[in-house]
Amino acid sequence: MFKRLAIFGVGLIGGSFALALRRAGAVETFVGFGPRRETLEQALELGLVDEIAVSAAGATEGSDLLFVSAPVAQTGPILESIVPHLSPGAIVTDAGSTKSGVVAAARAALGDKVAQFIPGHPIAGREVHGPKAALTTLFDGKCVVLTPVAENAAADVATVTRAWEACGATVKTLPAPQHDDVFATVSHLPHLLSYALVAQILGAKDADIKFGFAGAGFRDFTRIAASNPEMWRDIMFANRDALLGELEGYQQMLAHLRVLIENHDGEALERLFWRASEQRLRLYPPA
Amino acid sequence: MFKRLAIFGVGLIGGSFALALRRAGAVETFVGFGPRRETLEQALELGLVDEIAVSAAGATEGSDLLFVSAPVAQTGPILESIVPHLSPGAIVTDAGSTKSGVVAAARAALGDKVAQFIPGHPIAGREVHGPKAALTTLFDGKCVVLTPVAENAAADVATVTRAWEACGATVKTLPAPQHDDVFATVSHLPHLLSYALVAQILGAKDADIKFGFAGAGFRDFTRIAASNPEMWRDIMFANRDALLGELEGYQQMLAHLRVLIENHDGEALERLFWRASEQRLRLYPPA
Repeated sequence: MFKRLAIFGVGLIGGSFALALRRAGAVETFVGFGPRRETLEQALELGLVDEIAVSAAGATEGSDLLFVSAPVAQTGPILESIVPHLSPGAIVTDAGSTKSGVVAAARAALGDKVAQFIPGHPIAGREVHGPKAALTTLFDGKCVVLTPVAENAAADVATVTRAWEACGATVKTLPAPQHDDVFATVSHLPHLLSYALVAQILGAKDADIKFGFAGAGFRDFTRIAASNPEMWRDIMFANRDALLGELEGYQQMLAHLRVLIENHDGEALERLFWRASEQRLRLYPPA
Repeated sequence: MFKRLAIFGVGLIGGSFALALRRAGAVETFVGFGPRRETLEQALELGLVDEIAVSAAGATEGSDLLFVSAPVAQTGPILESIVPHLSPGAIVTDAGSTKSGVVAAARAALGDKVAQFIPGHPIAGREVHGPKAALTTLFDGKCVVLTPVAENAAADVATVTRAWEACGATVKTLPAPQHDDVFATVSHLPHLLSYALVAQILGAKDADIKFGFAGAGFRDFTRIAASNPEMWRDIMFANRDALLGELEGYQQMLAHLRVLIENHDGEALERLFWRASEQRLRLYPPA
């Protein structure tokens, strides 16, 4: 399907993309590039890539698919380093968790060549990161959201779609602003809330005792608090407006719950718990 | 170990306690009692209990171990129904997630016989409830916290400890007020926060789209929002003061995070994320 795939950032997501495309036999040569030599050498040793590029030019020239999987704030600079060397037929896509900012950065960096950039977001992750965390099966059964720009050719969107399907994923499309609203709610806010709880306990006098008695509910609630801090810092700022809006809604919800508890309004509290638990059970029916 | 165990509330916890003690061969006869005939018959069919009692008196008389596993607000009324029929050597214990309120209710209901009541809290649960959710292995490797009262005989605390150990659990003790502080933080608040997020999204115009794009992080964050609403309503009120204190701390943490994001203070936000993620990884090292 592809002669040469260049991966900018061979960590959890970039490495898993490589492994899944290798499994599918969809790429002839895998090239890795990134800022840390150590990470690239690890990716080479693990067989995620066949070659390490020594420059963005070296990674870009001769590649027909380019995959940017780095913290979203780096998307602009990476695309700027790519654009002078990009072949006319090549396609660039990314894995950034926010899309309006990425699209704006792509327009600024790529100019007319933004037509060659298909923005994407695989809804998959792990609480560990780096090349060692990469899994061939990471995208199996997962959803990938593409947020095409008006300039994209339908054929290029279809090519990126097929690449993700070869990785075992299903592909949906959304306009970038709606994507960012949706993921502010179901992903970015929960990450912030999870980090916040662990940080709050760390500030308590008896933090060790509290962590010592944490059970399975706490473990699951805080799993995403082990996520890559640099990546998530970038996401919070890249999707700042939508996130702040959702955070405000959540703060109002907590203020409402506080009033119910202060007023001993068991009926209203139980009703809210029922609605939430029924929805959660609808979304994820127990086995 | 025990001739006759009476279980008041044969759902997830009561049923699992029965199954685990049966596996250990620690009880001769298992008796179930509760307000819903249907639940009791289901428990009998599933082999959780050998008999259904028709009254609290019938459940209590002849039992040397009594286990109260019902929403915490029912602990007082259940103990009141038990006390006239309680044999001098019998031991009563419970599974309530809050303990100061339970101890106060036990003192009021049992009077001098409070010496026979060993308050307990198994740190184990599932997002499904009722007799069908019961598992023989629910307590394997889990922690059970006992919060003995001054009147308890050490031998009786040791007996309850051995019963839980026979279920596969390890037992720790804490004073009831400290128990409630600790679990307000690591359990009750996270449940409230998880219910709150699902409730917030339910109130959104595009709730279905948002839920449709939820990934693994959302699934884990909201697992505890599928918990038993009646049970958790009771817990929120039974541990009201500690919970409101923790909630206030969390609201302040969110206000702090809001300021960091509004001010584009990436350095401070990333530092907080690092501290949280390192702590989470220390608590639960990746396999």
